[in-house]
Amino acid sequence: MDLNCDLGEGYGVWRMGDDAAVMPYIDRANIACGFHAGDFAIMQATVRLAKQHGTMIGAHPSYPDRHGFGRRSMVVSADELRAQLLYQIGALEAICQAEQVPLLYVKPHGALYNDMQADSQIFTTVVRTLSELNRGRTQPLQLMTLAKLQRETELDIAARHGVELIFEAFADRCYESNGQLRARQFEGAVLHTQDAIVAQALAFAEQRSITAHDGSELLLSADTLCVHGDNPQALAAVQAIRERLS
Amino acid sequence: MDLNCDLGEGYGVWRMGDDAAVMPYIDRANIACGFHAGDFAIMQATVRLAKQHGTMIGAHPSYPDRHGFGRRSMVVSADELRAQLLYQIGALEAICQAEQVPLLYVKPHGALYNDMQADSQIFTTVVRTLSELNRGRTQPLQLMTLAKLQRETELDIAARHGVELIFEAFADRCYESNGQLRARQFEGAVLHTQDAIVAQALAFAEQRSITAHDGSELLLSADTLCVHGDNPQALAAVQAIRERLS
Amino acid sequence: MDLNCDLGEGYGVWRMGDDAAVMPYIDRANIACGFHAGDFAIMQATVRLAKQHGTMIGAHPSYPDRHGFGRRSMVVSADELRAQLLYQIGALEAICQAEQVPLLYVKPHGALYNDMQADSQIFTTVVRTLSELNRGRTQPLQLMTLAKLQRETELDIAARHGVELIFEAFADRCYESNGQLRARQFEGAVLHTQDAIVAQALAFAEQRSITAHDGSELLLSADTLCVHGDNPQALAAVQAIRERLS
Amino acid sequence: MDLNCDLGEGYGVWRMGDDAAVMPYIDRANIACGFHAGDFAIMQATVRLAKQHGTMIGAHPSYPDRHGFGRRSMVVSADELRAQLLYQIGALEAICQAEQVPLLYVKPHGALYNDMQADSQIFTTVVRTLSELNRGRTQPLQLMTLAKLQRETELDIAARHGVELIFEAFADRCYESNGQLRARQFEGAVLHTQDAIVAQALAFAEQRSITAHDGSELLLSADTLCVHGDNPQALAAVQAIRERLS
Repeated sequence: MDLNCDLGEGYGVWRMGDDAAVMPYIDRANIACGFHAGDFAIMQATVRLAKQHGTMIGAHPSYPDRHGFGRRSMVVSADELRAQLLYQIGALEAICQAEQVPLLYVKPHGALYNDMQADSQIFTTVVRTLSELNRGRTQPLQLMTLAKLQRETELDIAARHGVELIFEAFADRCYESNGQLRARQFEGAVLHTQDAIVAQALAFAEQRSITAHDGSELLLSADTLCVHGDNPQALAAVQAIRERLS
Repeated sequence: MDLNCDLGEGYGVWRMGDDAAVMPYIDRANIACGFHAGDFAIMQATVRLAKQHGTMIGAHPSYPDRHGFGRRSMVVSADELRAQLLYQIGALEAICQAEQVPLLYVKPHGALYNDMQADSQIFTTVVRTLSELNRGRTQPLQLMTLAKLQRETELDIAARHGVELIFEAFADRCYESNGQLRARQFEGAVLHTQDAIVAQALAFAEQRSITAHDGSELLLSADTLCVHGDNPQALAAVQAIRERLS
Repeated sequence: MDLNCDLGEGYGVWRMGDDAAVMPYIDRANIACGFHAGDFAIMQATVRLAKQHGTMIGAHPSYPDRHGFGRRSMVVSADELRAQLLYQIGALEAICQAEQVPLLYVKPHGALYNDMQADSQIFTTVVRTLSELNRGRTQPLQLMTLAKLQRETELDIAARHGVELIFEAFADRCYESNGQLRARQFEGAVLHTQDAIVAQALAFAEQRSITAHDGSELLLSADTLCVHGDNPQALAAVQAIRERLS
Repeated sequence: MDLNCDLGEGYGVWRMGDDAAVMPYIDRANIACGFHAGDFAIMQATVRLAKQHGTMIGAHPSYPDRHGFGRRSMVVSADELRAQLLYQIGALEAICQAEQVPLLYVKPHGALYNDMQADSQIFTTVVRTLSELNRGRTQPLQLMTLAKLQRETELDIAARHGVELIFEAFADRCYESNGQLRARQFEGAVLHTQDAIVAQALAFAEQRSITAHDGSELLLSADTLCVHGDNPQALAAVQAIRERLS
């Protein structure tokens, strides 16, 4: 079980979260690629920061929506989505190349991430785009996606295109009994106390069941745990999780 | 002597020039990368068009200035310029990879192109950035730059970083006797008649001297000729040059 | 019956249509306000052009979506939509003030225009925003909206907020028998021949019925006719309509 | 002597400073208009916040440079600068109108502010643009500019166009003996201790001389004092100044 975090989500003079503070505690940095957040300079700085800490780097591409932070769904054709993904992944990968660190995986952001879970055609477009980039690579890009109870469809699509999946669970989000994340507009969607966050993280790490919103037990296996470091409480939770995992 | 042209310079619904019309007549397509013009969808379409015609593809990166079309000079640090170049080149290269065509060279755009000619530190930053991307490549990126009378400085910088230069001349621009392009704000800076454009193109192609603005003869060697296809007259000139070159 | 046209829809160096060519033939210029198209410089130039021809000026605000030209629907709160409208209308009105011409009306663009027809809450937000701007004005802003068979809801909302409506019909769009515009994705949605366009325009002008897509007669009253001038054929149709109306 | 502060300088999800915390302590809110920072929603929220506290509202327009936060100088024609100013001022004023609070003055931002001090043609363009907006107003827009030792040129230009000036001094910036602000790239350009900031503020308020960087006494009269509230120390200084001024 490793820890991943969305980073590099400032823009221009604006910052979001304290990337330097959280980087030492995580294993994977999902770096914004300029469409919902991030820009060339922030991406370069974040790649360097990840390199310094030996953190694995993934691309965190989004629909083109800086003002809405990529949180608005957008109707785009498969072909246009492919172009959006290629543009962002390539931009980050060139920075990685110049810094001599590999780009290892892709985790779509926000509305695109959600749409990919809900619509297998969008999921297929993402997978196929990665498979096109992976031709001839010794280290193919993996795709990070949501850990679910039912994952046959995703595994099947990924297998057909030869793309490896990384399933992520969330340390600080409440789950429904069907294994889905509780939607943010409902109460209780986000865990706020450090105890609750650390307990859920350890349950995932030790492959034990967690408690869903309705009180039922939910057993969900995951490869990586998404954590957040954009406020002091969140950062403290990450540090506590890291300490308990070590 | 081959022909290169700046392409993919629309944005969203807006188009500039008729790329499909000029593509059959050129050898190299300098494709805008989204900072002064172009976007993910236009880049993808332009790469496909180039592939269809077997046209060599180069990146045409710019300062980040969509509203000003990259024509405004911008004071940026060497480190920031490096990030700008990497971002744009990588974005285009990923699209090329997915389309299975190589990205071969880089030609900076507009104010960045001019600044690179005037300031050897900026030229050095561009060259060094390419050399960082070229590590371990079997087909390293070349840099397209302006053919001048005095090119020792550029050749020296390029040699130190192991980057190959492509020198370009302009078919439709008037030159000063010192070998520099006549600035656009002065009369006579641009050749308008097809006869004059074709004659100058042939002189470059046959390594004969051209007539500078003051009437003197100017002998300037070049590897490639920049042509424009963004209006019917320009397109007709390109077709005439191509016919005469063949 | 007067003629209105969407103008000022370029951005930066990019142009859309030939505003100078169509301006002499129209009565109302709907000027883009920078969110889907247009920018400060283009808006200033378009206001001056309208002033020169005595054309009435309206604001043509949009969802914030330059890359998609305002054609994508966007879920925004009523409060956010109010801010979007105020920002764009105010920006254009200040330019009008400095040029000493009045801003007379507002016609929402693209997806916002369509959403306003389909959702009376959005229509209400637009109307209420205008009414807030109209407080204390001697020349209150009017709202241009689609001429329909059933217009009680819109008239009622507008009356409640004291905003006057201008109903527009389209010269070059095919109508369904229920009075709605035939959607663009279906064949026959757009009239292409000059004869058909002029005939439909004259029918609206003379308050005669037009022929709907299914061949039935449709009588739709309108205050203004939307025409397009963004290609030579469209421009010729506008000139022909103007000539016949005079 | 009153206090002014630059506010509304976030963008989308990003925030800069704690506007709600500083608003109660200031007299004038200089609100960003979307070109260097701010957007329609932030502008609306900031106008409402100012209204709630009875704070006077001014527009804080910039060159169009969101990524660079308006800190880069930009070569623009007088006509283009006019359009930039009108667009931004109008956008904010419409929001003010809908909120039923007056827009009272304009304070250019960043590089435009600096350029206006250094180049009387740019100063003239700003003044003339305000005078064009002021025609027929009962409450004309004033222009806030830097308090200097030599202000004849500015006063003369302003008088010719009938625009009233508001001279501002800085509580937390060190001055050179010639009355200019010490440039930010030099040591000592910014006062960091609360004692130093409050002392300088009081000196301005009581029309006493301050100590310039070289130790000499400098007597500079000002109408308003610019303070910053974008970090806890700055906010504490503002509160201390306000307490001492009352």
